[in-house]
Amino acid sequence: MKIGVFDSGFGGLTVLRELLAAIPGAEYLYVGDTARLPYGSKSAKTIAHYAVSSLHFLENQGSEYIVVACNTASALAMPAMKAAVTKEIVGVIEPGAQAASELSNTKNVWVIGTAATVASHAYRNELQKRGVRAVEKACPLLVPLVEEGWTEHPVTEQVARIYLNELKRSDEQAADVLVLGCTHYPLLKPLLHRVLPEKMRLVDSAQAVAHSVANRLGELALQANGQPSVQFFATDSVDKFRELGSRFLGREIERVELIALPE
Amino acid sequence: MKIGVFDSGFGGLTVLRELLAAIPGAEYLYVGDTARLPYGSKSAKTIAHYAVSSLHFLENQGSEYIVVACNTASALAMPAMKAAVTKEIVGVIEPGAQAASELSNTKNVWVIGTAATVASHAYRNELQKRGVRAVEKACPLLVPLVEEGWTEHPVTEQVARIYLNELKRSDEQAADVLVLGCTHYPLLKPLLHRVLPEKMRLVDSAQAVAHSVANRLGELALQANGQPSVQFFATDSVDKFRELGSRFLGREIERVELIALPE
Repeated sequence: MKIGVFDSGFGGLTVLRELLAAIPGAEYLYVGDTARLPYGSKSAKTIAHYAVSSLHFLENQGSEYIVVACNTASALAMPAMKAAVTKEIVGVIEPGAQAASELSNTKNVWVIGTAATVASHAYRNELQKRGVRAVEKACPLLVPLVEEGWTEHPVTEQVARIYLNELKRSDEQAADVLVLGCTHYPLLKPLLHRVLPEKMRLVDSAQAVAHSVANRLGELALQANGQPSVQFFATDSVDKFRELGSRFLGREIERVELIALPE
Repeated sequence: MKIGVFDSGFGGLTVLRELLAAIPGAEYLYVGDTARLPYGSKSAKTIAHYAVSSLHFLENQGSEYIVVACNTASALAMPAMKAAVTKEIVGVIEPGAQAASELSNTKNVWVIGTAATVASHAYRNELQKRGVRAVEKACPLLVPLVEEGWTEHPVTEQVARIYLNELKRSDEQAADVLVLGCTHYPLLKPLLHRVLPEKMRLVDSAQAVAHSVANRLGELALQANGQPSVQFFATDSVDKFRELGSRFLGREIERVELIALPE
């Protein structure tokens, strides 16, 4: 069973980490489009254009199932991506919204993500379909803070408090779930738990999509009990990918292959 | 007199602002390669490849002189850019280093910039040629903080203190000049003045390159006494360019033309 995983960079390695835990016996191909990251500040058209070239690469490499680990691409380009590939494909938004709707008792949730993800209202729309009200907030400083390695830093805690207070002020309802709508945010879980009200529960879209893929593949996933293997591909900065990526994956990344994608 | 200005995004508008002050009568063409920013985390080869397509666009639009406002492109791709164009071209590194060497009494300076600019040691090398010793420090959080609009925010002050303290600890000599090696940093001048020791003077590479261009063009610059005009071009997100860019330019940007560059 070959599963292709696509992200704009190495953030999606938090999704791969959960996939490896949920379906350990599969073969994984991971593409990080590091030459063109971050997608979070780009237009929907540009993102769709970039994403599709990575998906074609994953298909050509034999992926039988494709996971779009990138929240921004999932939020802005899912129809274009679905139309461009022949294999089954899943993004992070729907599983994240589904998990949040199951977890919330008050049916009021908060969503944090990049500027592009939030502007798309993709989470809000998916949650609305499930009868859940969402208040969304772009947190553009959290990604650079995570990339700086400041996941337990007082500055990051202060920034998180500021963003979450703004959410609180803009929301009169009693939200009880916070959706982490960006692949970088799982690294901030311990810090966020300290900052959030005690009753607030976190939904990690990375975990949600991994469980959804395991359920969807069912028997196929169980049969995939070979030696787990991962091949890493990046469009630029393979050294940075290896260095930073290891923190996101939770284990050493030994080899990253530099690839050129058609533009 | 048509002057082309190139940057990876809207940060270079701080350079255009200084050019408009130094040579008000010229016609300006400004290209922001916003589809592919930030350059700061990309490899030299990728940056050179991207930069050259913007320079060709500026030449084709009739630029008689080209200013590379992007520190990262100036630091990593100057030889490739010089080889690719027929017009005279100047980057921000040499003028910035020259201004710092003239201003420093102790001949010890600090340089702050993006990860890529600092890793290239372009400022250190140019300063060394002028008999000045440089200690460099990457400050990757300052760009997102400026883009978040937090130019006077306590969090930004704390982050600046942390970075500058690290510089202080790694430097036993008495530096008396700080070079702002990134186009976003001029917006942090008031905050940096509060954080820095009183004797420390700032070199703004944007000002330095504008003065250098005015000197270089001499008579030509003076003759260019028509109505100043600027045309703005961006490869993506023209709305964001207009919104954020106005803060960098210090005045309203009315119209930004979306262009597609060969990749």
